[in-house]
Amino acid sequence: MVFDDKQGMKIAFEEAKKKGGVPIGGALIHEDGTILGRGHNMRFQSSSATLHGEISTLENAGRLKGSIYKKCTMYTTLSPCHMCTGACIMYGIKRVVLGENDNFVGGEDLLKQKGIEVVNLNDKDCKDLMSKFIKERPEDWYEDIGE
Amino acid sequence: MVFDDKQGMKIAFEEAKKKGGVPIGGALIHEDGTILGRGHNMRFQSSSATLHGEISTLENAGRLKGSIYKKCTMYTTLSPCHMCTGACIMYGIKRVVLGENDNFVGGEDLLKQKGIEVVNLNDKDCKDLMSKFIKERPEDWYEDIGE
Repeated sequence: MVFDDKQGMKIAFEEAKKKGGVPIGGALIHEDGTILGRGHNMRFQSSSATLHGEISTLENAGRLKGSIYKKCTMYTTLSPCHMCTGACIMYGIKRVVLGENDNFVGGEDLLKQKGIEVVNLNDKDCKDLMSKFIKERPEDWYEDIGE
Repeated sequence: MVFDDKQGMKIAFEEAKKKGGVPIGGALIHEDGTILGRGHNMRFQSSSATLHGEISTLENAGRLKGSIYKKCTMYTTLSPCHMCTGACIMYGIKRVVLGENDNFVGGEDLLKQKGIEVVNLNDKDCKDLMSKFIKERPEDWYEDIGE
């Protein structure tokens, strides 16, 4: 099947809801509908400084030929930070669909400058999940974005 | 001890020389001289799509408070790709010292735009190690940078 953006985000949101850490999830989906990877932030589960939602998703997708990324959409429940933005640029991902950017604004402008389509679904569930975490665990959130 | 840039790069180069993969290494060194992390590209050793030299270095440094990165230099044997550039920006690393940018030019301009000091040591050993790899294993190199 070919995913529409709401279906793609549903997978990223399922990842975000997995308990134990920063509730940000991602999914890398090929334009033919294949889910190549899905993942979530692993800062607390793996004591990781680099496995943000999108990095974790790319890591779980494994080694792929460069040409494959060019036909993929990265779904992420929150606007991607500069590291995750850069990862999408490096691999030449075609589209980045984000759940929301009320709680954090990352490198969306840079993605657009590099010719990557950016869509903000302005999703209430993504917003609520993230704002609850930031309110309850502000120090953990600021650590995750290096502040 | 406090490291000078040549000493810092020596550590990154030692990492780059570790056999089995893309020969790019890094070291994260605090301004007080503490080596917080060191690492090398793990694409082939760990079948990883995200553990570039600098990401591996940050991952090996582990979870740190955001304030610590602001006093660190990232040493990397090669100009950092967009993902690794973004990681340095996200964490607010103070300086990025690269071995060379003859074999690849990454996001140096963006680092500078973000106020990060960039120093290119124009190091012959780094150049020779990388150019040899690209010549011998071009497909592996292009996979690593998503081309």
